[in-house]
Amino acid sequence: MFDWVERLYPISRSITGEGVRASLSMLREIIPLDIHEVPTGATVLDWVVPREWNLRRARLVGPDGTVICDTDRSNLEVVQYSIPIQTKMTLAELRPHLHSMPDRPDWIPYRTSYYNETWGFCLADRVARSLAEGEYRVDIDATLAEGSMTYGEYVVGGESEREVLISAHICHPSLANDNLSGVVVAAHLARWISEHPRRYSYRFVFAPATIGAIMWLALNRENVGRIAHGLILSCVGDGGAFNYKQPRRGGADIDRAVAVAMRDAKVEHAIKPFSPWGYDERQYGSPGFDLPVGCFMRTPNGCYPEYHTSADNLDLVRPEHLEKSLAILKDVVGILEADRRYVNQSPHGEPQLGRRGLYTAMGGYANAAEGQLAMLWMLNQSDGSMSMLAIAEKSGLPFAALSAAAGALERAGLLSVAAAE
Amino acid sequence: MFDWVERLYPISRSITGEGVRASLSMLREIIPLDIHEVPTGATVLDWVVPREWNLRRARLVGPDGTVICDTDRSNLEVVQYSIPIQTKMTLAELRPHLHSMPDRPDWIPYRTSYYNETWGFCLADRVARSLAEGEYRVDIDATLAEGSMTYGEYVVGGESEREVLISAHICHPSLANDNLSGVVVAAHLARWISEHPRRYSYRFVFAPATIGAIMWLALNRENVGRIAHGLILSCVGDGGAFNYKQPRRGGADIDRAVAVAMRDAKVEHAIKPFSPWGYDERQYGSPGFDLPVGCFMRTPNGCYPEYHTSADNLDLVRPEHLEKSLAILKDVVGILEADRRYVNQSPHGEPQLGRRGLYTAMGGYANAAEGQLAMLWMLNQSDGSMSMLAIAEKSGLPFAALSAAAGALERAGLLSVAAAE
Amino acid sequence: MFDWVERLYPISRSITGEGVRASLSMLREIIPLDIHEVPTGATVLDWVVPREWNLRRARLVGPDGTVICDTDRSNLEVVQYSIPIQTKMTLAELRPHLHSMPDRPDWIPYRTSYYNETWGFCLADRVARSLAEGEYRVDIDATLAEGSMTYGEYVVGGESEREVLISAHICHPSLANDNLSGVVVAAHLARWISEHPRRYSYRFVFAPATIGAIMWLALNRENVGRIAHGLILSCVGDGGAFNYKQPRRGGADIDRAVAVAMRDAKVEHAIKPFSPWGYDERQYGSPGFDLPVGCFMRTPNGCYPEYHTSADNLDLVRPEHLEKSLAILKDVVGILEADRRYVNQSPHGEPQLGRRGLYTAMGGYANAAEGQLAMLWMLNQSDGSMSMLAIAEKSGLPFAALSAAAGALERAGLLSVAAAE
Repeated sequence: MFDWVERLYPISRSITGEGVRASLSMLREIIPLDIHEVPTGATVLDWVVPREWNLRRARLVGPDGTVICDTDRSNLEVVQYSIPIQTKMTLAELRPHLHSMPDRPDWIPYRTSYYNETWGFCLADRVARSLAEGEYRVDIDATLAEGSMTYGEYVVGGESEREVLISAHICHPSLANDNLSGVVVAAHLARWISEHPRRYSYRFVFAPATIGAIMWLALNRENVGRIAHGLILSCVGDGGAFNYKQPRRGGADIDRAVAVAMRDAKVEHAIKPFSPWGYDERQYGSPGFDLPVGCFMRTPNGCYPEYHTSADNLDLVRPEHLEKSLAILKDVVGILEADRRYVNQSPHGEPQLGRRGLYTAMGGYANAAEGQLAMLWMLNQSDGSMSMLAIAEKSGLPFAALSAAAGALERAGLLSVAAAE
Repeated sequence: MFDWVERLYPISRSITGEGVRASLSMLREIIPLDIHEVPTGATVLDWVVPREWNLRRARLVGPDGTVICDTDRSNLEVVQYSIPIQTKMTLAELRPHLHSMPDRPDWIPYRTSYYNETWGFCLADRVARSLAEGEYRVDIDATLAEGSMTYGEYVVGGESEREVLISAHICHPSLANDNLSGVVVAAHLARWISEHPRRYSYRFVFAPATIGAIMWLALNRENVGRIAHGLILSCVGDGGAFNYKQPRRGGADIDRAVAVAMRDAKVEHAIKPFSPWGYDERQYGSPGFDLPVGCFMRTPNGCYPEYHTSADNLDLVRPEHLEKSLAILKDVVGILEADRRYVNQSPHGEPQLGRRGLYTAMGGYANAAEGQLAMLWMLNQSDGSMSMLAIAEKSGLPFAALSAAAGALERAGLLSVAAAE
Repeated sequence: MFDWVERLYPISRSITGEGVRASLSMLREIIPLDIHEVPTGATVLDWVVPREWNLRRARLVGPDGTVICDTDRSNLEVVQYSIPIQTKMTLAELRPHLHSMPDRPDWIPYRTSYYNETWGFCLADRVARSLAEGEYRVDIDATLAEGSMTYGEYVVGGESEREVLISAHICHPSLANDNLSGVVVAAHLARWISEHPRRYSYRFVFAPATIGAIMWLALNRENVGRIAHGLILSCVGDGGAFNYKQPRRGGADIDRAVAVAMRDAKVEHAIKPFSPWGYDERQYGSPGFDLPVGCFMRTPNGCYPEYHTSADNLDLVRPEHLEKSLAILKDVVGILEADRRYVNQSPHGEPQLGRRGLYTAMGGYANAAEGQLAMLWMLNQSDGSMSMLAIAEKSGLPFAALSAAAGALERAGLLSVAAAE
């Protein structure tokens, strides 16, 4: 997966434009994405699709001819969606258009101005503070014109029409963890799911943040009721602890599945309540939709110093971190697929497991083995109201142990799937 | 306010009598109190208004003519409601009538015997232990006779008939924190409220503790349904942390308003569950009424050593503590006035705040400003079920920030007040 | 009680056989137990009553004639339910039939094989590891034959048909804490209850663990609805903290009664949630029955090193620990008997306790005495929905204080028992 992050890293992406198209095309080498275009001016919920922005090159040249900013060096050096401009100005006139980070003097910040027509350059604060008086040459060679906004979608059908939505934003230029990590892990998760039998259908959406999710919701407004569970993937390539942010709606099954997967994997993790600041869980969790879509991250947005700077680069993301994130997500999918409610068919007293070959023959030991405990928990709790996830939470036993026990007990005729499933 | 505490301090108050009348008259210099008299013998709920007690002077003189107790020195030196008596007795006969505090040998305790006809003197334990044998002269020049019980009331009408009840007990003699602090802060809060527009009506009651509240409830039994929120004020002049005691009824809005006001003011504070021991929340919270009336204090009754002793004097109460208590109470009133439920008028996805001038133009920053967060929280949570107070609790944002955001969003047509309001 | 543990200790008990009968006969010296026999082959829920096992003697003799194991020395030295066998074998052949505990080299483990026909010896690991090569003589003189399974039952009738079930397993041989302690405490509790007037009926069951409870449930399937509260007693003779394990069903009154009894007795204690591993709460709490039967212990099964070994002997159990366990259980019974809901007959304001002689005459003290607080709590909370147990939990006051207050208030006409009681 790290190779994919490396390949995608140099491409200049924004919320529209050729960079997004090039990135989605590259992903089609992994999964057969459908690529959709929505024209400039289209109304999507409360928003309007903006003009398409394509940057050829932006340069800021100093009085002595020194190149201060140049997007051929890094696509972060221009404010995203800067209007085309060619002009000269004094340092004082230029200053309001320069963006740097005084507390991180060597890093270049990532700045955008999608909906306010302006322009600007981003640069290291050390450079910004050393600029001499004189005449500066501003040259932003870009187009901001009628066009379209692009997103990719891939649906892996399952037995049921009920869907699991996985979404990753694709609008950031050369920022590795936020969010090439999410994009690449989502694509590999999609391929893995497509190769295995499944109960749910899975929908993968690769779209710009905010307006992309809004656009997708506008186009799919009638179908969102199919979404049973969902996850935004972002910042999954760094080495921090796992962080899961809950959807607006409380008590979602996806919360329990992610929590149990992280617990069972014995990874350091935290679970955060919903807040309307972050990624596209804001849109899926707007009160008119209120979908059970959480956000799966390692270090969250805004919580690592490299966030939205030139230091969110290929050094921050490691192959093993991507792999671990993918592994946990596979576990989450496995839990969602396996989770169900059972009914104990011999609910009066414990059934005699021994004569069915399900119980240790020799008694008297102080503790039962995990597999035995898992059978006792499944039998005791399976009254049709408790899902395996709920039993995993209550018992503290690994979901996999309960799932194995449920299988053995179902084969022995002691458990049946509850009617409602 | 401290000047008012000083002026009221020397007056001899009890649950009836001229001291209460004199105190209420003095408060009329601040607010136009109505003064009510309820005659001796009137039945008020399970109680009967007692005879009126007026003390001219109580003195205890020792065998050698030394004045041991003299209410001209401090009105605490007699047991409140002592019957009139003029007699001589030995020290042994006198002892059961003497009250002192062995663990605080220099302080004089405050003792009462409203409903049991007896008499007594209160004195420093150091003095009590040094008394010589011999004949003592007891002279309690008081009247205990048909009369009335007095209370003051001030109603500030608002748009709505729904009321906020503020009550302070006025029956204690020279005890500064308990409760001249509550009386004076209540009067100043009343004046401040009367000078501002308001949604609720506000009712201020200045009455004796216990029987005064019972009397008020008996006389207003049919109208208590108007009380939407209420607070007892007591012990609000000392320098301790703020303490809010919840009403019997759980989950009252007044609880949330006081808690958020204290949190937002960043003052040290604690929230205590209801118990049927304390001030008049006991009466308002009796099961037949069960009104949402909490108790707002700094150091609670019984939790500071000077409580109910001569050391609860003008040294214990400081002007700045009274001011801070008043400031928090104004915040509570402000929250109750502003709190309401809104409905997001653009609930599908986040509305585009930028084109309405409500959002920062430049993007990419790691954290949103408080005002922006407040707008996102208000939009996300306003589905008609969540009040601003509930959003303040959930978001951790200051109520004032949410209130400002709600105003801006309402003006932009993005929020409307929920129909039920 | 310790004398009874001593008398019962040497008897060879198992899930069937003469040892159980002898033990139950001995208990009839304390309480008039009914003794029931259920024949081999009877179907009890999902189980079948096994053949009856009676051991005369089991011996293992080494190549040099040394006696390695001999049940005349300790009845733990044979695997319980070993089939009869007389044979000779090499050490290698013998090894799979030897059970010892490497981590406790001097203790003999307790092992059973009720439902798998095999045989074996239990011995100290130090001995097991020192065995020489050569021919060993195995002589297990036992019968495994048609017969019956035995249990004892004692019902103490009360005013109501609603029952409190107390159950102790009686199938363990010479293990003192698990469970002669439970058996003896149960018997003495039964006698004490029979000597006092009571509202509930009480049913005491002395049966083998697991299959005994299953057998009892099978025979009483139609009557389990009468069980209002229940406790399994086990491991109540050691010096550890008290441990109460909740039933499967949440929020049972027995939970609250035991918790308040332990709290009020100021004993160290812990409350554990249900799990389907432990004692017969597993059977009473199977989903088809789901009875409110908790488990009352000191150190729980598997949590003390001597558990299920020869070290669970008469040194582990102390008379004073048995007495304290019995005392707490009497408190639990007292709480269940006294607990009820009251309705305040003077719910508007506090009633005037003083004129009814229920309140301290002299006022002004910083704290109320416990008895006064108990009256105020009972009056304030008694709206017909709150039981005394609930008030004990909420107020933190001892149940006994509330019960005394309720009595005084009921005599004064201020409280009445709620209609539903």
